[in-house]
Amino acid sequence: MQTFFDAEIKKMKIKNCYFPLFVSPGVLQKEKDHIEGFAPEVAWVTKSGESELEVPIAIRPTSETVMYPYFSKWIRGHRDLPLRLNQWCNVVRWEFSNPTPFIRSREFLWQEGHTAFATKEEADTEVLEILELYRRIYEEFLAVPVIKGKKSEHEKFAGGLYTTTVEAFIPNTGRAIQGATSHCLGQNFAKMFEINFENDKGEKAMVWQNSWAYTTRTIGVMIMVHGDDKGLVLPPKIASVQVIVIPVPYKDANTQGIFDACAATVKTLNESGIRAEVDSRDNYSPGWKYSHWEMKGVPLRIEIGPKDLANNQVRVVRRDNSAKIDIPMASLVEQVNDLLNDIQKNLFEVAKQKRDACIHTVNAWEEFAEALNQKKMILAPWCDEEEVEKDVKARTKGELGAAKSLCSPFDQPELPEGKLCFASGKPARKWTYWGRSY
Amino acid sequence: MQTFFDAEIKKMKIKNCYFPLFVSPGVLQKEKDHIEGFAPEVAWVTKSGESELEVPIAIRPTSETVMYPYFSKWIRGHRDLPLRLNQWCNVVRWEFSNPTPFIRSREFLWQEGHTAFATKEEADTEVLEILELYRRIYEEFLAVPVIKGKKSEHEKFAGGLYTTTVEAFIPNTGRAIQGATSHCLGQNFAKMFEINFENDKGEKAMVWQNSWAYTTRTIGVMIMVHGDDKGLVLPPKIASVQVIVIPVPYKDANTQGIFDACAATVKTLNESGIRAEVDSRDNYSPGWKYSHWEMKGVPLRIEIGPKDLANNQVRVVRRDNSAKIDIPMASLVEQVNDLLNDIQKNLFEVAKQKRDACIHTVNAWEEFAEALNQKKMILAPWCDEEEVEKDVKARTKGELGAAKSLCSPFDQPELPEGKLCFASGKPARKWTYWGRSY
Repeated sequence: MQTFFDAEIKKMKIKNCYFPLFVSPGVLQKEKDHIEGFAPEVAWVTKSGESELEVPIAIRPTSETVMYPYFSKWIRGHRDLPLRLNQWCNVVRWEFSNPTPFIRSREFLWQEGHTAFATKEEADTEVLEILELYRRIYEEFLAVPVIKGKKSEHEKFAGGLYTTTVEAFIPNTGRAIQGATSHCLGQNFAKMFEINFENDKGEKAMVWQNSWAYTTRTIGVMIMVHGDDKGLVLPPKIASVQVIVIPVPYKDANTQGIFDACAATVKTLNESGIRAEVDSRDNYSPGWKYSHWEMKGVPLRIEIGPKDLANNQVRVVRRDNSAKIDIPMASLVEQVNDLLNDIQKNLFEVAKQKRDACIHTVNAWEEFAEALNQKKMILAPWCDEEEVEKDVKARTKGELGAAKSLCSPFDQPELPEGKLCFASGKPARKWTYWGRSY
Repeated sequence: MQTFFDAEIKKMKIKNCYFPLFVSPGVLQKEKDHIEGFAPEVAWVTKSGESELEVPIAIRPTSETVMYPYFSKWIRGHRDLPLRLNQWCNVVRWEFSNPTPFIRSREFLWQEGHTAFATKEEADTEVLEILELYRRIYEEFLAVPVIKGKKSEHEKFAGGLYTTTVEAFIPNTGRAIQGATSHCLGQNFAKMFEINFENDKGEKAMVWQNSWAYTTRTIGVMIMVHGDDKGLVLPPKIASVQVIVIPVPYKDANTQGIFDACAATVKTLNESGIRAEVDSRDNYSPGWKYSHWEMKGVPLRIEIGPKDLANNQVRVVRRDNSAKIDIPMASLVEQVNDLLNDIQKNLFEVAKQKRDACIHTVNAWEEFAEALNQKKMILAPWCDEEEVEKDVKARTKGELGAAKSLCSPFDQPELPEGKLCFASGKPARKWTYWGRSY
């Protein structure tokens, strides 16, 4: 995923950089809404060795305030724009409620893009170009269907102008999850950090900024969407081991021949670019190994026993649907490639069917409450007022957590004239997804 | 460099992984010598938001203590060995003395490899294989000559068995610098973290471990070795911009034609895999741009003016020796590639000549003191006793800092029988490099 995304943003002339992990209290607190959003989650270093620091220093929860003082120094004229940077790094947000591996952890890995433009139009365009890359990461690599849309004012990035998102849904738990976000920051940070430039008419102007990020949460979403009772189910495109080869010797069989065939199979697959490994450990039985590699989610298992050896074939077992296929060695690479492609496609289609079955369209509060009770992802007409969203949260509070707006999809169904908001009864302005979320 | 190193270690079957930034006081303090070495530099998080943490948590200064509890869980039998992991990450060491960008900073980026083997022989072999990769990073990519050798007991990694190093030297400041280190940890950590396995005879045994790292310090060394009064001088292999193309229009000339030729030149170079950019800003003069890109260390500058346009050629200027060459457009790619290769080679050769001129071989204390005074890298016969090294440090203490041992080179000159230690007068056991260092 990183190789894909990094190459795509380089095509867009975005350059990689690295800024420090630590941020001083002074700059961290410069943008008021921003620090209000992040303050409770900021980790502070106050001691080194046995010494107290004179001034505690924060660990970046995100790097707007780390980078933008430099944007202010570097940007002088319109020829210095656009300035488009990205960094791959770790950030820390000290979460207290329900830490979950990959989904909500105190440290996580991400890329964060930070860009500045002369015009809002250019910023708007980039926001959507990046969002499309995030959709592709989810749908083409992780085989997870997502919905593109815009966050509500209440849910947007602290200090930004508007936030776009790709939203995923976990049918098993009935919770939506914010997949990745691409923000237009407008000119709020530019104002606070004095990021000004002389425009092409010789006038002083303020830049328009974006920031955007996807995180290791993508992995958590993928795990929850595809995993089953046997363990992980990894889409072939992102599986570090795509094929595990397991020798299945019998007492009186040609054990050495079987091990040699396994090694040859791995070699053939590796040479054609398929990530294959052999499990030749002699202290575990074939059955134990089957379970072990199923748990690890490897898309294809190849078994080679005496019969396979005799017939010059291998037995292939799919992780996604347990189908078993015998493949002659002569067409090994071709058929394994076809199977891997088919698994990738099948995982997405199955996930999309399950996700689509969870989407309910409602018009009124009773329907909404019922659908929420059934753990659905709910599409409802909404008046788009922040007070109403707060009210929905308050009315749905409970053990499982309150419902909130997920996004207003860019792909809007028709909104008939006179359609009313499901929650307030006021005139509806847009269709919006709601639900419980991670 | 990362692409090179990552591919090489993958060939060695080393896998990438990621462990947390934070380490609990309990595990951090498990290996006594190790924590003694690092304790004064450890940064502690004691607060999140407005709340004090119940137990402060450390930021990793290195990840032995983060990873090895898991090594202990994962390694059971000899078939689980070798276990070979690497992570690309940031670490924090709270330095107080002379922080210097890239050389000695509180946060830095590195890769850290952590491996476990059934036998000492396998560990020994890997230590040197990795050290060779570090030599290649310095010599083949950064064009910086290094000396491979072994650290003294006093200078080895805290908690390890022995440390190998590639040592560089900065002629301008007369200081050596530890370039990158590859450690054999022996069984010290295995003992503390109980990393045991059942060997192939069914007996309980302890693993042999290595750890090895190179950091962003490599960049600092490269800057100091090649830089001049005009700014950076980047070796072509690692320059993010290898060729900067600058239009040189005159008032009455075909300005559009010149700009088009610049764009075409960049396109041609990019298509052949050369990293080229054009500086088409109209608010800076060509002369200003020359200085700007010289400061940034770009290996080649291409100028295109009216005469070049008329003659269907470009003017090329080398950053390393200021040589100017006119190249016909027809042979652009070929000649630019040749020039980039030549610059890479020339930078290394010039650096090696300068470094070699700084190496002095001495036999007695007076010669040593004199060479140190002249800021040399000093090769001296040594008895290899820790007390004597401490004594050398004490006797050379002063404003510029004390001398210390750098390494005993693997490539040892002959040591005649009866040769005495330069510092103690006892029988010498090996030739060792000494000097002031970063």
